[in-house]
Amino acid sequence: MQRSYIRYAKYYRTGRRQVKIGSQTQRSSAISASNAGTILVRGLDLAGQLMGQVSFTDHFWLLLTGGRPSAAQRRILDATLVAIAEHGLVPSVQASRMTLAAAPEALQGAVAAGILGCGSVVLGSSEVAGRFLSEVHERRGAAGSPEDSIAAVIGEYRAQRRAIPGYGHPLHTGADPRAQRLLQIAADCGCAGAFCALARQVEQALPKYLGKSLPLNVSGAIPAVLLDAGFPLLALKGVPILARTAGLIAHLLEEQLRPIGFVMSHAAAAAIDYDGPRPAGFEPDEA
Amino acid sequence: MQRSYIRYAKYYRTGRRQVKIGSQTQRSSAISASNAGTILVRGLDLAGQLMGQVSFTDHFWLLLTGGRPSAAQRRILDATLVAIAEHGLVPSVQASRMTLAAAPEALQGAVAAGILGCGSVVLGSSEVAGRFLSEVHERRGAAGSPEDSIAAVIGEYRAQRRAIPGYGHPLHTGADPRAQRLLQIAADCGCAGAFCALARQVEQALPKYLGKSLPLNVSGAIPAVLLDAGFPLLALKGVPILARTAGLIAHLLEEQLRPIGFVMSHAAAAAIDYDGPRPAGFEPDEA
Amino acid sequence: MQRSYIRYAKYYRTGRRQVKIGSQTQRSSAISASNAGTILVRGLDLAGQLMGQVSFTDHFWLLLTGGRPSAAQRRILDATLVAIAEHGLVPSVQASRMTLAAAPEALQGAVAAGILGCGSVVLGSSEVAGRFLSEVHERRGAAGSPEDSIAAVIGEYRAQRRAIPGYGHPLHTGADPRAQRLLQIAADCGCAGAFCALARQVEQALPKYLGKSLPLNVSGAIPAVLLDAGFPLLALKGVPILARTAGLIAHLLEEQLRPIGFVMSHAAAAAIDYDGPRPAGFEPDEA
Amino acid sequence: MQRSYIRYAKYYRTGRRQVKIGSQTQRSSAISASNAGTILVRGLDLAGQLMGQVSFTDHFWLLLTGGRPSAAQRRILDATLVAIAEHGLVPSVQASRMTLAAAPEALQGAVAAGILGCGSVVLGSSEVAGRFLSEVHERRGAAGSPEDSIAAVIGEYRAQRRAIPGYGHPLHTGADPRAQRLLQIAADCGCAGAFCALARQVEQALPKYLGKSLPLNVSGAIPAVLLDAGFPLLALKGVPILARTAGLIAHLLEEQLRPIGFVMSHAAAAAIDYDGPRPAGFEPDEA
Repeated sequence: MQRSYIRYAKYYRTGRRQVKIGSQTQRSSAISASNAGTILVRGLDLAGQLMGQVSFTDHFWLLLTGGRPSAAQRRILDATLVAIAEHGLVPSVQASRMTLAAAPEALQGAVAAGILGCGSVVLGSSEVAGRFLSEVHERRGAAGSPEDSIAAVIGEYRAQRRAIPGYGHPLHTGADPRAQRLLQIAADCGCAGAFCALARQVEQALPKYLGKSLPLNVSGAIPAVLLDAGFPLLALKGVPILARTAGLIAHLLEEQLRPIGFVMSHAAAAAIDYDGPRPAGFEPDEA
Repeated sequence: MQRSYIRYAKYYRTGRRQVKIGSQTQRSSAISASNAGTILVRGLDLAGQLMGQVSFTDHFWLLLTGGRPSAAQRRILDATLVAIAEHGLVPSVQASRMTLAAAPEALQGAVAAGILGCGSVVLGSSEVAGRFLSEVHERRGAAGSPEDSIAAVIGEYRAQRRAIPGYGHPLHTGADPRAQRLLQIAADCGCAGAFCALARQVEQALPKYLGKSLPLNVSGAIPAVLLDAGFPLLALKGVPILARTAGLIAHLLEEQLRPIGFVMSHAAAAAIDYDGPRPAGFEPDEA
Repeated sequence: MQRSYIRYAKYYRTGRRQVKIGSQTQRSSAISASNAGTILVRGLDLAGQLMGQVSFTDHFWLLLTGGRPSAAQRRILDATLVAIAEHGLVPSVQASRMTLAAAPEALQGAVAAGILGCGSVVLGSSEVAGRFLSEVHERRGAAGSPEDSIAAVIGEYRAQRRAIPGYGHPLHTGADPRAQRLLQIAADCGCAGAFCALARQVEQALPKYLGKSLPLNVSGAIPAVLLDAGFPLLALKGVPILARTAGLIAHLLEEQLRPIGFVMSHAAAAAIDYDGPRPAGFEPDEA
Repeated sequence: MQRSYIRYAKYYRTGRRQVKIGSQTQRSSAISASNAGTILVRGLDLAGQLMGQVSFTDHFWLLLTGGRPSAAQRRILDATLVAIAEHGLVPSVQASRMTLAAAPEALQGAVAAGILGCGSVVLGSSEVAGRFLSEVHERRGAAGSPEDSIAAVIGEYRAQRRAIPGYGHPLHTGADPRAQRLLQIAADCGCAGAFCALARQVEQALPKYLGKSLPLNVSGAIPAVLLDAGFPLLALKGVPILARTAGLIAHLLEEQLRPIGFVMSHAAAAAIDYDGPRPAGFEPDEA
């Protein structure tokens, strides 16, 4: 069961995309197969060995890696999914609720509109933060010490005017309570390793480079604890996407019962002025 | 904690959309609130009371209903999510993998493309099946017996040339192993009630109306066990959407490691002939 | 060139979906074919016969129907696309701009989020309005007069508690200037026929059924003028989708130069109160 | 009318994103404003000055730039939109048709699924090709000659293992007929300038760097002719997105009349083998 996980493990670490294993014309998939009576998922009988016996979180880990999670891996994955599922009326939730208000015939369309806001700037930054931590981690050997590899990678980001992903939060300016809690859970599980340590070391080093301190945020803590737990780097963005899908569905249920989509849209439009050309005498309507 | 669940419970049953509670200008949400130090989700402290203590499935139930699931509710929700997360290279997975092959910069876009295929015909039919079962259930009183309400609703569907949702499967023609297993788990949990019974009664009645038997499929069993467990009708489609998101992420991880998006696209194009007009001498390329 | 248009013409009128021409296993497409040197679109050489010689609007008509538009058809299609492309910071535009703010790496994702708001309630109601007009039109024979078929179809809509699509506008309460202008252009072109007449007759009849007058809106006028021009009923929703895509791209260009996505999102969140449970002493942050 | 175009013109050239004009808290938009009787678009009365008088292509240019196109600008924009609207059963079209087959209730969802495949690798590469040409163009001064700036930028791309965008095509290996035709149209219009020249010079230089020739493709020619025509760099990806939306709508009309979504999906699945673990005796179904 762990075979395919082992086979891919080195790619999980390096985060190299589109590696062609074997020839370029490989045409295989190892996730699922079926016949009239049986559905196999990662080699296990879905109805006989999985349904009723594993949690959805276990199943997600199995789908991704081909193996079952340990108790520590399960707890950490659950904690990250719970951490990022919901944070109020953020842009992705607003886009989703406005879309349902306009197109109530397609719940899937409203969920999709919300997921599309899981980007590199908001919500989806776990992926870029994981790549940042991996770059620092990979260069540790060559650079001699974490301090040097941190300095090297931060230097490159700043030269390209890129923000250091995973640090700072507009609301939780002192500390992001979710980040603190994730590191604590990883430590409790005996699962806090090199990536959690690096996440902290970067946090401590940032004032030197930025002139101010920026606390580790939830999108920085998620890759730290997941990479230490052996979660694949190339699937990191899947965690906020899956988690937020749960939050979006809750908002879309509420939108059906107590709609606010058009109220939000009205307020958003009213906040913006028109400053383009207008004919003499034209007065725009108050939105 | 259960207050908001109780308040909405009647709407969960009737499946009425866009009920305006209070005035039309209600402008409230009851899901989440935050300040600099705390994030509340359904009134609970996210970092202090939820992360590390509840599973993602518990959290999904909490987000939807405002309350924590019982052990039976958790087991049934887990089983439905595990049941529908993955079924091989189905259209939604193909759309998603082809989209990532074309646009590797946006994993969220590839997930969204897959979710958009969670429609009324494929994958998302749990919702329409749940509405069908609810219609039969609601009319039981007036009609005097399940047989009569089944006859009445099936008659209306057939008059509108609509398929009876939740029955029949192109591959699992004898029986859908996932449907069988879901009903068994509900019975094991002591949670099989009126909707599970109706799902079976409809299955037995179908040959009389259709001239052939059509076994209950996974999209019919999901609403049966979830409605008996108290899951909100208006969120039923969220179950295949959330579940399939997990499967899509696994496929998108594999697509990065062992790409098949363009291979599938080539085969799909090669299966279709061009039968439009063409100038003399033009020969289309073999796709 | 007109062959395939003629072949499908009867389906355009009836709006029947998923008609299987020939056997159920038909596997052909008539839109495009290529070889190394030539790309055919609807049988014409794309580079040699279309590029540089036809407008994008002509090309859209050709793609849909297999034939070139007349001058009147072109003018009417252009007018509908211009009419519906842009109407300020409406929900679809807000969703799109917020999505780009969160995920600037994928312009296509932001456009998709906007298009998903082209639904049956807002923006995409040209389709449902076209179906309404077609139902009224088809029953005219049987019912003896337009008045009777209007009464019959409105009666059915009201029995199902459905709004009459294509009438009324929250901002343009007196008259929708776009609807007036579209009917005028159709008349100027000599292209105003049965559907334009019906749209007016329904407008005049509505007070009798609704107790108030509701003026024809742009989503009612678009199907009226397009169906009279021979545009396919099953592609009607494509007109607001294509038109709004142009508007979305303009907004996404402006969002890159003068971002307002987060400003709008902040204002929208601030308009909504949290009314869920909270622990003693918790004060939500002002959004 | 040209004022806002002039104001932004320098940003169009440099392609710098998220430029904050004025303070960070600017909250204005210059595209559209309305009151009960009038809709302004870029300062013009939509019903009175645009509908019936301008083509959709003119309107797209106006929406983007705030000004009307010249005859040459219109002809070039039309030619690029016509060039890229349709190229047969490519991945985006397949994703779109499969999505409609699964979810026929939401045409907008099927269009969105197709647009999401307008990525950096396929279909959407006009944007990255435009950035490449702009980089070469901007460095010309410093580098002394086009040859040197071409060498410098190609060197950087190759150092980062990035493909040179806008060159080579899997089917049109000799020459892409659309690219040839676009350059010819630009020359006919008197609109071929520095970017068209650079596109040719890069094509001629490539064999020296790559060891083989790669002809300019349509996604390289589109930015060349549009940038010479004054089209904003940051909206380049909007051209394939808008154009392909027209093609997708034609395919979705055909999918309703002559469905092939499931036929394509079946063929795509059949092309892929399952190579994961399986229990003894399990035989997967032929897809």
